[in-house]
Amino acid sequence: MAAITLAALNATDVPGFVAALDGIFEHSPWVAEAAAAHRPYPTLAALHEGLMAAVEARPPGERIAFIAAHPDLAGKAARAGSIAAESVFEQAGLGLDRLSDAEFTRFEALNDAYRARFGFPFVICVRRQTRDAVLDAFKTRLANSPDEEVAAALAEIGFITRLRLVERVEGPGAPPTTGRLSTHVLDTHKGGPAAGVKVELYEVGASGRARLAVRMTNADGRTGAPLLADAPLRIGTYELVFHLGPYFAARDLPLPERPFLDEVPVRFSIAEPEGHYHVPLVATPWSYSTYRGS
Amino acid sequence: MAAITLAALNATDVPGFVAALDGIFEHSPWVAEAAAAHRPYPTLAALHEGLMAAVEARPPGERIAFIAAHPDLAGKAARAGSIAAESVFEQAGLGLDRLSDAEFTRFEALNDAYRARFGFPFVICVRRQTRDAVLDAFKTRLANSPDEEVAAALAEIGFITRLRLVERVEGPGAPPTTGRLSTHVLDTHKGGPAAGVKVELYEVGASGRARLAVRMTNADGRTGAPLLADAPLRIGTYELVFHLGPYFAARDLPLPERPFLDEVPVRFSIAEPEGHYHVPLVATPWSYSTYRGS
Amino acid sequence: MAAITLAALNATDVPGFVAALDGIFEHSPWVAEAAAAHRPYPTLAALHEGLMAAVEARPPGERIAFIAAHPDLAGKAARAGSIAAESVFEQAGLGLDRLSDAEFTRFEALNDAYRARFGFPFVICVRRQTRDAVLDAFKTRLANSPDEEVAAALAEIGFITRLRLVERVEGPGAPPTTGRLSTHVLDTHKGGPAAGVKVELYEVGASGRARLAVRMTNADGRTGAPLLADAPLRIGTYELVFHLGPYFAARDLPLPERPFLDEVPVRFSIAEPEGHYHVPLVATPWSYSTYRGS
Amino acid sequence: MAAITLAALNATDVPGFVAALDGIFEHSPWVAEAAAAHRPYPTLAALHEGLMAAVEARPPGERIAFIAAHPDLAGKAARAGSIAAESVFEQAGLGLDRLSDAEFTRFEALNDAYRARFGFPFVICVRRQTRDAVLDAFKTRLANSPDEEVAAALAEIGFITRLRLVERVEGPGAPPTTGRLSTHVLDTHKGGPAAGVKVELYEVGASGRARLAVRMTNADGRTGAPLLADAPLRIGTYELVFHLGPYFAARDLPLPERPFLDEVPVRFSIAEPEGHYHVPLVATPWSYSTYRGS
Repeated sequence: MAAITLAALNATDVPGFVAALDGIFEHSPWVAEAAAAHRPYPTLAALHEGLMAAVEARPPGERIAFIAAHPDLAGKAARAGSIAAESVFEQAGLGLDRLSDAEFTRFEALNDAYRARFGFPFVICVRRQTRDAVLDAFKTRLANSPDEEVAAALAEIGFITRLRLVERVEGPGAPPTTGRLSTHVLDTHKGGPAAGVKVELYEVGASGRARLAVRMTNADGRTGAPLLADAPLRIGTYELVFHLGPYFAARDLPLPERPFLDEVPVRFSIAEPEGHYHVPLVATPWSYSTYRGS
Repeated sequence: MAAITLAALNATDVPGFVAALDGIFEHSPWVAEAAAAHRPYPTLAALHEGLMAAVEARPPGERIAFIAAHPDLAGKAARAGSIAAESVFEQAGLGLDRLSDAEFTRFEALNDAYRARFGFPFVICVRRQTRDAVLDAFKTRLANSPDEEVAAALAEIGFITRLRLVERVEGPGAPPTTGRLSTHVLDTHKGGPAAGVKVELYEVGASGRARLAVRMTNADGRTGAPLLADAPLRIGTYELVFHLGPYFAARDLPLPERPFLDEVPVRFSIAEPEGHYHVPLVATPWSYSTYRGS
Repeated sequence: MAAITLAALNATDVPGFVAALDGIFEHSPWVAEAAAAHRPYPTLAALHEGLMAAVEARPPGERIAFIAAHPDLAGKAARAGSIAAESVFEQAGLGLDRLSDAEFTRFEALNDAYRARFGFPFVICVRRQTRDAVLDAFKTRLANSPDEEVAAALAEIGFITRLRLVERVEGPGAPPTTGRLSTHVLDTHKGGPAAGVKVELYEVGASGRARLAVRMTNADGRTGAPLLADAPLRIGTYELVFHLGPYFAARDLPLPERPFLDEVPVRFSIAEPEGHYHVPLVATPWSYSTYRGS
Repeated sequence: MAAITLAALNATDVPGFVAALDGIFEHSPWVAEAAAAHRPYPTLAALHEGLMAAVEARPPGERIAFIAAHPDLAGKAARAGSIAAESVFEQAGLGLDRLSDAEFTRFEALNDAYRARFGFPFVICVRRQTRDAVLDAFKTRLANSPDEEVAAALAEIGFITRLRLVERVEGPGAPPTTGRLSTHVLDTHKGGPAAGVKVELYEVGASGRARLAVRMTNADGRTGAPLLADAPLRIGTYELVFHLGPYFAARDLPLPERPFLDEVPVRFSIAEPEGHYHVPLVATPWSYSTYRGS
């Protein structure tokens, strides 16, 4: 629900500008204050760059203090109820508030190790991550040098605030904040789209997989709406399962009772949350190919 | 261990012929007696056809009695220790002697239903079946008419005795009793075989999957020996898992930290135990295709 | 240029209706007269069906006379200047007016053989045909029985008049009269669309090939507008040539000086003039695949 | 026809060694003389390296004189009959002795330009080249610096003498002097090899194409013997044409009268004369893929 326009932001006075952006950068109204001086911004992307430039312009110590103003991820603060409302909302989709006790303990241990090493809490834009990707990021970033890690944390704050900004402000030239996962099924046995193929999408993690969507292909071999859209794609591993067995059985071809291909899994990872992943299946009862398409 | 030659079988007297083939057709020396009259057999396949023809020549009631002389599959007889030695050996590979109590109960119930319907025990060449395929066959064959089922049971006895015969007798023109599953990995990013790719083979059942083999591809992108060979392939569902992630990482290409393709599963079914299944993977870091090849 | 609307046609008197459709059915105003009685027509497709039904309702002899009212294809009449304006226009795209003397002689001979066999001129909707397809159709149809050939000729008149109708009358529910040929190029070496690939389209005939279009792929690996559209596709054989050599050379990969793939020809035929043919290329420097897609 | 063994060469005296290798290095018995001192050679490859090392050990001026002792390619010398017997034999396969007058003039002009630039004749191992590749090499090498070109000419003399050596001397460890081109056709519509597909191989040049081979695929979808083997593959561009139309028509599938795929051309280049090129076709009536396989 965008509550204000970019044009209004460009036109208002500095206190109004700061108030309108309150909460986008946590506990740090000085970011908006500094960025206000460089108005007007022609696009939302330029506005976001202006805000981040205000952070980058500060000396190292202040940048670290700025990072430190962010809450722990799913940490003690969360239990104590002190995470800002938006952060909680952002984390909800990931299920971090439904951590088992063992997982909670593990997250806490990683959080503590991180804070001990860098002196500030682990910040990550959870809306761009699966739970497994968050754990991987913990491990990868613990190996960073302090300078690298400050840069990594600021990049994540950039992702967090970019999302908050486009939800708060309406205007042209929005920075990319959504990705898209789509598929289609082509039957090269008959030379046309495969209609009526059940397609399932799973998120695959270390501890199992969870089904995110199930669709039937339409007359054009597509699923209508994309499988994922209108939000960042979460970095992580996925599996599409194409139910070719019933589809080809319905075509009444001379195939073995136990067909060569039945449920065809296609496992792949998403690394670009704002990217477009088109993962089609080109198939016969005896062969298939898939690729990252466009 | 072939203990006798076809030439010797063709030359010996009838009692010697019957003795040499003892146990191939369970409790039914009359099969060999009848077939002895049609010697000489030019090939092992012809000998086996001659033996089966002796069964087919009998009136319906005797054919049913012949089938009924076979032991129950994993049934009460097995518990009582009365299955012939070869049958036990044949079943070992399938793991039927490691049935859980629940599974044992289920098999027993199917066995009882089958016997109640047809009046003879369920006969199947277990060496050509995965455990899940045996269960599927129970269900499919329970729907047969009595005539269809007699034909199905005799066909299975044909498969069982064909295997026993080629293990007992040495000679030219053996009937087909072995299948082959092979793979290779081609890297169309570099235009050559993919060496050093870990490939796993799993049997996939309703209750999970079990790893049957793990290999590394050689300089020619192949696994040296086939994944399965020298025996019938078991009818069932399988999964090959190709570990492309480490392979392409070792090639030091500009790929995302979380690569699009890492573990590539290829799930397929085998329906022809004596067939050749070549299931290759033609891949880049962003695409792959597979097919039943030759 | 649609000069009249379906609504107006439905509302006018019979003479007005007949006058508005004059020339669509050559020399046969009675077709429109008969169809006028069944107004109103809800769609253009229904109007066309109504007109064709008027022809089908006539006894065999009249249907043959109706066919015989059509001019010879590129025959003596053409030389003498007596073909109706629309027919000449329709033939122009095919190049039939640029026949060499030898070809002209051949067409005349086929025309004469056809007329001798069936007693009426060879009618074909040339806008749905390449020149080679017309020749093939001559040969195929000469083998028809008289009844089959009357049906074939009426079907062609259906195609001709359907095209004329949608050009003359505006309204909802037009019958299909256009096809589409499109392509795109995907680079599975890098995992994205291939931009800047030169793509040529040729018509391939017995005596050579003629280039119909040349395009460069855009950032999405597509050619912008389809290669062919807004008209029936001509039945015939085509070749797409994808210039992969310069494309991959520009990516500066470690490839041989003489690359494995340079100009990649994809030869295919179009059999459905009103169909959609999407013929993509999915390629690396060492491999490619293509298919009739959607 | 190997006339002598490596063992005998290792054992003979120096004059015998030089005599046995006479003509391999044109007009330069000193090469063999120098290499004789380093005997015994364990392999043919080592012997050839020893001979080339004797050339490389000479000062620049002598290396150039050594190159200059080679005849012009198809030049004035050829007309005058002064090319050594082996060179003429080597060139025969390429058809250089059948040059048209215009081509002859062009080759002469390139030869003259080359000699004017470098002071020695253009040397190339024609048995590793198509005619078009020789022309390309002329152009490429005219752009070399003198030092680069001396290296290029010596490399070609290495290829020429390697071929002559393995034809003259028998022994272990021969250097690679042969390549292989093979294909197979897989029908993924039916899930098995495509038998009875006509496959043609053409050499493609600037002025047209010439058919080198025509084969029918066997029951395994292969052509029996490779398409090219037992000699170096000639650097150049080729086209395989797979006649899928008649093959699928014989399978009696519901396809259009004018099938989507009929003659499928696959155009590719060979850059490694001693390499193995396997170029298969994996096809349905509506799709195909090809790649450099192994």
